[in-house]
Amino acid sequence: MTDWGLIAAERLARIARCSAPGPGVTRLPFTTEHTLAIEDIRGWMTAAGMETTLDAAGTLVGRIGTPENTFYMGSHQDSVREGGAFDGIMGVALACLGVEKARADGTTLPFSIEVLAFADEEGVRFPTALIGPRALAGTIDMDVMTLTDRDGIALGDALGAFGGDPASIPALARPRDRAIGYLETHIEQGPVLEDADEALGVVTAICGIERHSVIFRGETGHAGTLPMNTRRDALVGASEFVTAAHETGLAQADLRVTVGELHVAPNVVNAVPREVTLTLEIRAPEDGMREAAGALLHEKAKEIAARRSLDLDMRRVYQQPAQPCDPALREALTEAVVAAGGRGLALPSGATHDASAMADLCPISMLFVRCRDGVSHVPEEHASADDMGRAVGAIADMLARIGAAHDG
Amino acid sequence: MTDWGLIAAERLARIARCSAPGPGVTRLPFTTEHTLAIEDIRGWMTAAGMETTLDAAGTLVGRIGTPENTFYMGSHQDSVREGGAFDGIMGVALACLGVEKARADGTTLPFSIEVLAFADEEGVRFPTALIGPRALAGTIDMDVMTLTDRDGIALGDALGAFGGDPASIPALARPRDRAIGYLETHIEQGPVLEDADEALGVVTAICGIERHSVIFRGETGHAGTLPMNTRRDALVGASEFVTAAHETGLAQADLRVTVGELHVAPNVVNAVPREVTLTLEIRAPEDGMREAAGALLHEKAKEIAARRSLDLDMRRVYQQPAQPCDPALREALTEAVVAAGGRGLALPSGATHDASAMADLCPISMLFVRCRDGVSHVPEEHASADDMGRAVGAIADMLARIGAAHDG
Repeated sequence: MTDWGLIAAERLARIARCSAPGPGVTRLPFTTEHTLAIEDIRGWMTAAGMETTLDAAGTLVGRIGTPENTFYMGSHQDSVREGGAFDGIMGVALACLGVEKARADGTTLPFSIEVLAFADEEGVRFPTALIGPRALAGTIDMDVMTLTDRDGIALGDALGAFGGDPASIPALARPRDRAIGYLETHIEQGPVLEDADEALGVVTAICGIERHSVIFRGETGHAGTLPMNTRRDALVGASEFVTAAHETGLAQADLRVTVGELHVAPNVVNAVPREVTLTLEIRAPEDGMREAAGALLHEKAKEIAARRSLDLDMRRVYQQPAQPCDPALREALTEAVVAAGGRGLALPSGATHDASAMADLCPISMLFVRCRDGVSHVPEEHASADDMGRAVGAIADMLARIGAAHDG
Repeated sequence: MTDWGLIAAERLARIARCSAPGPGVTRLPFTTEHTLAIEDIRGWMTAAGMETTLDAAGTLVGRIGTPENTFYMGSHQDSVREGGAFDGIMGVALACLGVEKARADGTTLPFSIEVLAFADEEGVRFPTALIGPRALAGTIDMDVMTLTDRDGIALGDALGAFGGDPASIPALARPRDRAIGYLETHIEQGPVLEDADEALGVVTAICGIERHSVIFRGETGHAGTLPMNTRRDALVGASEFVTAAHETGLAQADLRVTVGELHVAPNVVNAVPREVTLTLEIRAPEDGMREAAGALLHEKAKEIAARRSLDLDMRRVYQQPAQPCDPALREALTEAVVAAGGRGLALPSGATHDASAMADLCPISMLFVRCRDGVSHVPEEHASADDMGRAVGAIADMLARIGAAHDG
């Protein structure tokens, strides 16, 4: 009997070497590492009997079947800097194996299947994300093509050099009446499944996200001669804001508030900081909860800036509403997980996913796989071969169930 | 009648163009900009009748006179990043003009004079400073030669490529029994003289300084899935420390406490910060006050780290005691300032100076020149031609007074 989990583990260990130097995996979109990874993924798709194409948005697409109606599966190939070998790429690997197992099981389906390996979900290289699924959903804002990375390279130029084609992206939009649904498999990135001793979980909803760019501007001066009580120290104001953001997040169970990035200018030992630029990110399963936290922290930033004689420039630069998963797909997935011996534990996702954007095209569903110590975005992130094998079984079983439902 | 202030203003405007690109002046030691500046300064020294040499520590030395007994004057050629056109370099320019005026006045002196244009007082490029005066005082720790800048270039290598000679630095030490004293002229870098409507001030003491390297280490993780109450967010701990440092500084009138530099890792929008490295600088005119603040903040950092489950690495990496100015030199300088129409206002210096290290060689004194709005280390820093002209007069007069004292 084929050990699907072992195959998944071997494939993921191999593709993890497509990484920039340093701890863990660093695979940013439209890089040499991305090109190398694409070659591996093409092999996974071909082994499952799929035809492969690289689309205009840099998504590697594997397709099998002739009906126009299509069921989508997939996830993203990219990682954060110094991330792990499972986040994103595992969802691509398990989707390919799910198709391969369904064929091996002799399952016949009344729809085609496409497995999607999206280029960029993490939004680390460019200040945007999800261009692959947004292109398919017809929701992409082409203005993002001019956004630049830290080397000043525009997204559109990087994509073009990689083999994509910005001008052709609008033509990628799929017909909604032919899109049956989307399944994304992903490590949980939290401790819930491990604490519950369950290999698999079924996602109820994906948390909404908003990101703010926050700049405190004061005045620099000599650190020895500028009296403390006349200082307009941007870092002192920013530090107070970081503390307030953390406390706001602590105040409600499902809220996550993070200042992840912070830059100081001029950033030298003997000068009072003139300017601090930072990012504020807020996530919540309910949009009202998230928006209230954003508004509260905007007021707090204004209050800090006024009290400390600083100038404030705070703008919400990104927003993504919470996305509930489709009840019918959730039910089929839950049945498949239970058939594989699980409890079908239901839980929300605190992280964004390609599914968030695919929701604009079709009903979505998500399968979570337990990850060791609940950690992700670090070199230590890990899902076991056993758990991945159970996931491949559940994916193939879910395909059979929704195939039967569409037949009937 | 020669307008010494106007000459000073013209020379300083010209040498300000020896700067890296960007706002204000950025002239770091042992760079192309430093080499260009040296050529200007050599011209100032020659015009005053001095013989010039570049010493092994990168100090440009102008000498006039034959007696072995020597009176020293000078300051530093370097600036902070995006600093101004007066801090440091004005002290070199006015010392040269003071010698030139003394000669023009027909003053004869029973000692030689050396004007010193030190390479590096700000400590911006390398994590050390004051190698020029320390070499003359015989107090230099040669281990600093292996310290590197942000490009990984060692101080010793940069100095060697510039025309210095690390191996010959120990031989630069001057005989203490032949060193009569040192006068450094500098912009005040604070608002005291401007508030008092005085062009010139006489320094009583230079504040002591200590610097600490502080590292908070926690654990990174996904910003959406890591529950707030289990986070070990290094930036949240560091922010609390920045606030505590500022409040410690506010608590005592003459204390200055600054976190000027701060770096976050991995520093991305959607990852909890794993590590924050920051600098803490404390200055005070009394060593006991400074050391008490350092100890208090070390305890505070330990308390924050323990409460937030962070690891702490906090080390004092630099220390310089407060330095009182010499009573006899202060008196001569005060008489010269009063003779020039000033009140001879006495004030401490909150900033470090080359004089701090020269104090190990000989008695020191400092002349402060009023600066506009009390600001320094910014492109707007400014001293007027009138005030600089008064300073040149006071310097020449002080030389005559101590010359007469040494004759008698």
